[in-house]
Amino acid sequence: MTINIALLGFGTVASGIPFLLKENGEKITAQAGTDIQIAKFLVRDDAEKQALLAQGHQYEFVTDITAILNDDTIDIVIELMGRIEPAKTFITQALQAKKHVVTANKDLLAVHGSDLLKVATDNGVVLYYEAAVTGGIPILRTLANSYTADKITKILGVVNGTSNFMMTKMVDEGWTYDEALAEASRLGYAESDPTNDVDGIDAAYKIVILSQFAFGMTIKFEDVRHEGIRNITPEDVKLAQKLGFVIKLVGEIVERPSGIYAEVVPTFLPKNHQLATVNGVMNAVFVESIGINEAMFYGPGAGQKPTATSVVADVIELAKGIDKGEVLPAFNTFTRETVYATKEDLVDKYYFAIETEDKAGQLLHLAELFHAENVSFEQVFQENIGDDRASIAIISHKMDLNQFDSLVEKISNLEGFTLRNTIKVI
Amino acid sequence: MTINIALLGFGTVASGIPFLLKENGEKITAQAGTDIQIAKFLVRDDAEKQALLAQGHQYEFVTDITAILNDDTIDIVIELMGRIEPAKTFITQALQAKKHVVTANKDLLAVHGSDLLKVATDNGVVLYYEAAVTGGIPILRTLANSYTADKITKILGVVNGTSNFMMTKMVDEGWTYDEALAEASRLGYAESDPTNDVDGIDAAYKIVILSQFAFGMTIKFEDVRHEGIRNITPEDVKLAQKLGFVIKLVGEIVERPSGIYAEVVPTFLPKNHQLATVNGVMNAVFVESIGINEAMFYGPGAGQKPTATSVVADVIELAKGIDKGEVLPAFNTFTRETVYATKEDLVDKYYFAIETEDKAGQLLHLAELFHAENVSFEQVFQENIGDDRASIAIISHKMDLNQFDSLVEKISNLEGFTLRNTIKVI
Ligand SMILES: NC(=O)c1ccc[n+]([C@@H]2O[C@H](COP(=O)([O-])OP(=O)(O)OC[C@H]3O[C@@H](n4cnc5c(N)ncnc54)[C@H](OP(=O)(O)O)[C@@H]3O)[C@@H](O)[C@H]2O)c1
Ligand SMILES: NC(=O)c1ccc[n+]([C@@H]2O[C@H](COP(=O)([O-])OP(=O)(O)OC[C@H]3O[C@@H](n4cnc5c(N)ncnc54)[C@H](OP(=O)(O)O)[C@@H]3O)[C@@H](O)[C@H]2O)c1
Repeated sequence: MTINIALLGFGTVASGIPFLLKENGEKITAQAGTDIQIAKFLVRDDAEKQALLAQGHQYEFVTDITAILNDDTIDIVIELMGRIEPAKTFITQALQAKKHVVTANKDLLAVHGSDLLKVATDNGVVLYYEAAVTGGIPILRTLANSYTADKITKILGVVNGTSNFMMTKMVDEGWTYDEALAEASRLGYAESDPTNDVDGIDAAYKIVILSQFAFGMTIKFEDVRHEGIRNITPEDVKLAQKLGFVIKLVGEIVERPSGIYAEVVPTFLPKNHQLATVNGVMNAVFVESIGINEAMFYGPGAGQKPTATSVVADVIELAKGIDKGEVLPAFNTFTRETVYATKEDLVDKYYFAIETEDKAGQLLHLAELFHAENVSFEQVFQENIGDDRASIAIISHKMDLNQFDSLVEKISNLEGFTLRNTIKVI
Repeated sequence: MTINIALLGFGTVASGIPFLLKENGEKITAQAGTDIQIAKFLVRDDAEKQALLAQGHQYEFVTDITAILNDDTIDIVIELMGRIEPAKTFITQALQAKKHVVTANKDLLAVHGSDLLKVATDNGVVLYYEAAVTGGIPILRTLANSYTADKITKILGVVNGTSNFMMTKMVDEGWTYDEALAEASRLGYAESDPTNDVDGIDAAYKIVILSQFAFGMTIKFEDVRHEGIRNITPEDVKLAQKLGFVIKLVGEIVERPSGIYAEVVPTFLPKNHQLATVNGVMNAVFVESIGINEAMFYGPGAGQKPTATSVVADVIELAKGIDKGEVLPAFNTFTRETVYATKEDLVDKYYFAIETEDKAGQLLHLAELFHAENVSFEQVFQENIGDDRASIAIISHKMDLNQFDSLVEKISNLEGFTLRNTIKVI
């Protein structure tokens, strides 16, 4: 038996698939229980087709999706074009044509995933997307198949390679945000418009998908608070180090008694936290649960081969089932009603970076203010920063989001004090 | 539908199963597609049965395995007694009675796994054992299901919690082996006879099982070279630190062009290696491959709840298939002929700890000796250690095992030099 696949797009990830099918052909065939063959490649236009043929690629290149939709020999369609349209339409059409679909398109899945999954179910086919979250780290299938007996209480993820590369440079080398961005661009890690990466949008897409697998709930993309790394200064980085922390952009999902909550924010991580040593473009997902307790899954968040490997693993999973004539299980079968946590239930420590005149009694003012909110200090570091100014860095004990909002407002309104930054502490 | 399970043994791990089935009952039932119920518990004797009943445990306790073997309502038998016998006999009988079996018994699997798997196949049932390797880390299922498209070239594992706890104390606090062992015993991490843990035997069991999942080959337990941590001195730890390394007991499996090789040995890990921060009783498996490149799976290697969670995850996987009336897939379907690497193909760096008289020309002697073997130095550190004696620590460049053996012999025979220790460097 041979399973025929069609690929949509011939970009970075897609062009890594033939390499794997060839290099690991024997193992892949043995694992899938059948040969896997690329039947068709959808490319943009005739010019791209001619160029690829001229480069010696010997595939059947097509420029019209109907050539794939109407081909009954094709069992699996792999979408690797990216963006919302026409990917959304093509995936929908493929599912309606009773073809299983594999994609790595996190943007699309985070916003329209539920709709697409419904189309799949309605048509008796499935949609798999291991590569959509942290490219090479096999996290989704692990959550779906190995956490079945466990109850996850928290996910912490360093899930955007570009921003983590930049934060690593800012922490290890003391670089500014702009210096780190320039280097990330030079190395091709940052796109010409880096917004998605540095503002936490890309990470928020992944957090939406992780929330479905880890908690069985779908947090809407708009409900994932996201704040990027643009406002982190070398000063913050230095203070973090003095207080025993490193700063990273961390996506967090927690389940509290009242419900779940997710955000992507710069975060103070204790130096000995397992996530603190996840550096450069590497990604990791840290999972807290009542059974396993603490586990971490570390690996490349992107890259041609890692991402293509996850895509082909999905294809093999599908091929196994198709080969046996089984009804294929949905990628994720864990679903519950989505309930959001209340603000009172969201309890964290925070770093407050404050500047003020360097004179007696200033810290006392702040201490009174925190005391009035019933919040105490865990660590305080004060230093003169010249011009008779003092920098005060506070690591608080835990407070809920209402207390935090109230403190931020009060400090901001405190005569003679500037609240330079606040950052969550784990 | 209800799936009935029987548990053999009511020890640490087994007594964690009821907790999970209760605490996560709703999720487990949803994931399995069926209720899972403990039908019988095999205990040692009537005294244990009476004691457990007196403690309020409301299970059907039996003292004779045939009560389970002959019970047609039982689909799955979970062996959590440990040791070789009677576990081996009971598992064999359960498989012959067409019951699927789940176990965490690494000792048994490492030595008799192939035989037991054959009994399973012959009887149309399966044997799952996620918990046998690194208790709470879902590594085996991940290798079996997510590395299907990839080709693994190397596994590095910190897979024994007791020895890692001890090494962490020896590295972080400068403790001696004996001090670390005393503390491990006090905390209940080390058994009264710590041999299995400190001599790398327990780790070697896990390495045997990992070799099957990662490489599709079965390395015989006797063929896993293992050397424990007894001979590591505070001196070695300090020198490692000076040279930029930490020492850990690491299990390694490599595939080289000529074949595979496995060993469990104390290892110098560069301080920035992801495994270097795996501390205390935590475990981790670091995987190098041609697709994903580098990934690491970190978590608790033991403990009641983590281990029970892995056991129940296996049970859920089985229950899903039983519920659908499917033929269940073997836990690991990746198998190739086992071929061992040649010595020439095993190329590593090494640390040599040498003592000699503190006089001119001593290092030159050593340099000549290495040069004659065609091996160069990567780092050298020499210091006077009193009594006119010098300690010379060498980190070599790569050499094959023949060169290593020859160098060890030559240095040992070198008049006036003592080869105190050699340790592999990653
Ligand atoms: N790269 C990674 O490491 C990585 C990691 C995880 C997930 N992903 C996801 O994987 C997907 C692919 O990423 P990529 O890096 O491979 O992107 P890419 O290099 O930009 O490749 C996309 C390809 O699709 C083609 N394409 C776009 N629209 C098309 C259309 N209508 N018809 C035919 N071809 C079309 C593009 O052609 P043009 O060049 O002509 O536009 C391009 O060749 C994205 O969803 C991405 O988010 C990527
Ligand atoms: N503990 C962990 O964290 C962990 C992690 C990974 C894997 N494992 C594996 O899991 C298995 C169980 O470990 P464990 O820590 O739970 O061991 P344990 O606490 O010693 O429990 C074993 C239980 O089985 C009982 N037993 C032994 N032989 C029996 C027999 N013939 N009939 C009835 N009961 C019998 C023992 O009773 P007695 O006390 O009377 O001997 C004991 O209660 C072992 O294979 C171990 O290697 C354990």
